[in-house]
Amino acid sequence: MPRTQTKIQIIQAGAALLHRKGFNYTGIQDIVTAAGVPKGSFYFYFRSKEDFGLAVIEYFEAFMLKRMDRCLVEADRNPLDSLRVFFDDITAFFEEHGCENGCPVGNISQETANVSDRLRERAGEAMNRMKERFRGCVEKAQEQGRLDGSIDADRMAGFILDGWEGAMLRMKTERSLGPLQGFTAILFGYTLRGPTCPEREP
Amino acid sequence: MPRTQTKIQIIQAGAALLHRKGFNYTGIQDIVTAAGVPKGSFYFYFRSKEDFGLAVIEYFEAFMLKRMDRCLVEADRNPLDSLRVFFDDITAFFEEHGCENGCPVGNISQETANVSDRLRERAGEAMNRMKERFRGCVEKAQEQGRLDGSIDADRMAGFILDGWEGAMLRMKTERSLGPLQGFTAILFGYTLRGPTCPEREP
Repeated sequence: MPRTQTKIQIIQAGAALLHRKGFNYTGIQDIVTAAGVPKGSFYFYFRSKEDFGLAVIEYFEAFMLKRMDRCLVEADRNPLDSLRVFFDDITAFFEEHGCENGCPVGNISQETANVSDRLRERAGEAMNRMKERFRGCVEKAQEQGRLDGSIDADRMAGFILDGWEGAMLRMKTERSLGPLQGFTAILFGYTLRGPTCPEREP
Repeated sequence: MPRTQTKIQIIQAGAALLHRKGFNYTGIQDIVTAAGVPKGSFYFYFRSKEDFGLAVIEYFEAFMLKRMDRCLVEADRNPLDSLRVFFDDITAFFEEHGCENGCPVGNISQETANVSDRLRERAGEAMNRMKERFRGCVEKAQEQGRLDGSIDADRMAGFILDGWEGAMLRMKTERSLGPLQGFTAILFGYTLRGPTCPEREP
């Protein structure tokens, strides 16, 4: 098997395992067993589990951004509709997968933040890129007059990301789509409901 | 030292360690070392690490609910002000503690959900009790006409909990209060901003 193919195989098998069991629960032996390669192969490509973690964050980030871009970067669509399409798409994905695992980027952020600064910072970058996608939608909606122009788009994007991450966490804990459905219902029904009422403006 | 005192000592020292390093990163040896007790003591009180995890979730839950009740159960205050006081209190707490660790209940939920059904269910109960506190505020605000009576209070409470959990996760990843500050700014500025504009009602 060509070398890069082996590396990809270790990352894919390891990422699936990590996503299910968590970074700290998964040992290097588990990863090589899942990948079906000898332990020496792991150390040929990765100096340490931390190095492997960086590769996995990159892999998870690419997975999430691809899914986001497919829904959010439709030029012609109302940007709030795009957001809704994205959340519906992800909800359908979790329905298919039994509400398990949650967000791979959020999970690894949570687990590694106090254990490795390199992993924490790289996971923060991935979260930030996800946030940027939401910010693009918020800004476009503001330009089109669908959202209050006075909203701090970066904060709103962070708020959307945080609510979604929390909903995925609770989905995983409750093994139910309820939190994700509640998240979109409140987000679109109340938070992103268009310009502020004139009588409530300062 | 009396027996119950030893048990409390193991739970407290273990909880602090778990909160910093995570459930799966922390071994029983680390826990007894931190507690300053022999390993046998651990097994006298807990049959397994899972049993210990249940005791720690109970401990974390009590910590969070006590902090919530101190702010939220003020009978005379505007319930939305109480919510804000609570979030300000927690933000000040994290400022003092260097934006580390995040929510102990959220963290252990995240880490154990796919590893142990007993821990997942117990962590879900703790999350639910936190959600109930928020629901109480939302319902009271609805009774007082401060929030739209048509809001599903349970969903809104879940939305608040999820956004807050996500903000604590991002705070920990970024080592910054920014996500918590953004969360309260958007929550109170947009989501909980009072009855829907008449022209946007169906």
